[in-house]
Amino acid sequence: MSSAERLIESTRELLWERGYTGTSPRAIQQRAGAGQGSMYHHFSGKPELARAAIGRTAEEMRATAEAVLSAPGPALERIAAYLHRERAVLRGCPVGRLTQDPDVMADATLSEPVKQTFAWLVGRIAEVLREGRDRGELDVALDPESTAATVVAVVQGGYVLARAAGSSEPFDRAVSGVASLLAARGTSARNDD
Amino acid sequence: MSSAERLIESTRELLWERGYTGTSPRAIQQRAGAGQGSMYHHFSGKPELARAAIGRTAEEMRATAEAVLSAPGPALERIAAYLHRERAVLRGCPVGRLTQDPDVMADATLSEPVKQTFAWLVGRIAEVLREGRDRGELDVALDPESTAATVVAVVQGGYVLARAAGSSEPFDRAVSGVASLLAARGTSARNDD
Repeated sequence: MSSAERLIESTRELLWERGYTGTSPRAIQQRAGAGQGSMYHHFSGKPELARAAIGRTAEEMRATAEAVLSAPGPALERIAAYLHRERAVLRGCPVGRLTQDPDVMADATLSEPVKQTFAWLVGRIAEVLREGRDRGELDVALDPESTAATVVAVVQGGYVLARAAGSSEPFDRAVSGVASLLAARGTSARNDD
Repeated sequence: MSSAERLIESTRELLWERGYTGTSPRAIQQRAGAGQGSMYHHFSGKPELARAAIGRTAEEMRATAEAVLSAPGPALERIAAYLHRERAVLRGCPVGRLTQDPDVMADATLSEPVKQTFAWLVGRIAEVLREGRDRGELDVALDPESTAATVVAVVQGGYVLARAAGSSEPFDRAVSGVASLLAARGTSARNDD
């Protein structure tokens, strides 16, 4: 890995672990095994490095979600796959945690990828739900937009509960809970009544 | 307000806005209008002040939740009241945001109130759901424990989405979405089928 690459990857890790405010240029250099000269040769400073790191993390989150959401199969299965996909639950969401970082949210170039990623994710899940509804898989009374926001919120809040408990159990419960509530709105569940 | 009191209240505000890592003893003194001597007369340092501040914030969150959850009325109405209660959505949850603070989570005396508060909240909502189920208000197939985790996660994740968007709208959508999913599991909704 080039030193520019190591600096970006180290910044991504530190932002995930300690946030922007808690990450010093020195800590980035140490983790990357790069000197101050090397860092300022490649990047104008911590903000530019953070922009590269946040952009890459956001892109990765989007690609991972898209992979499960665009898979073939019924809408509720794809959403269940999104909910249950493997995650480093106790580390929290690398994008979601940035919303608690006042210095990230105060800087439009840092907060923009965070905003875009969640807007895209909620929109994409709403699309999957609309598809399911149009194919007759889901109760027509189900509102795709608010349900999509619920699905994304459960995952983000599940991280909060897991970190509070020091255990992934509350995350698993929260996602199973919403998966059951959704399953009850599937037309096959209704036919079983 | 006494200066000890002002110091605790200022710490609460700063923890909410900037987190533990982002809050210096000096910032606390400035916000409280108290000198360094006064702060160290009342408290041994930032950790002790933060313990007092976090304890008080956690207690307040619990009392607010208990007020709506212990109100008279059907289980789903009490949970809807919890979901829709007025919140400073864009400020985020003063307790939930601490889970993203590595220095809080690494210190057992600081993280314990966070852990206890969420454990209590999920347990209390599960209790309300069990009551509703026992009174025949809810589908017997609804699992109170996982559904309670879902409800709390939606609120916590709703804050994340709202802060990402810079608007309370995604929070409102997420809570309406889960309220609709829950309403569909009510026995009165089922009778309407």
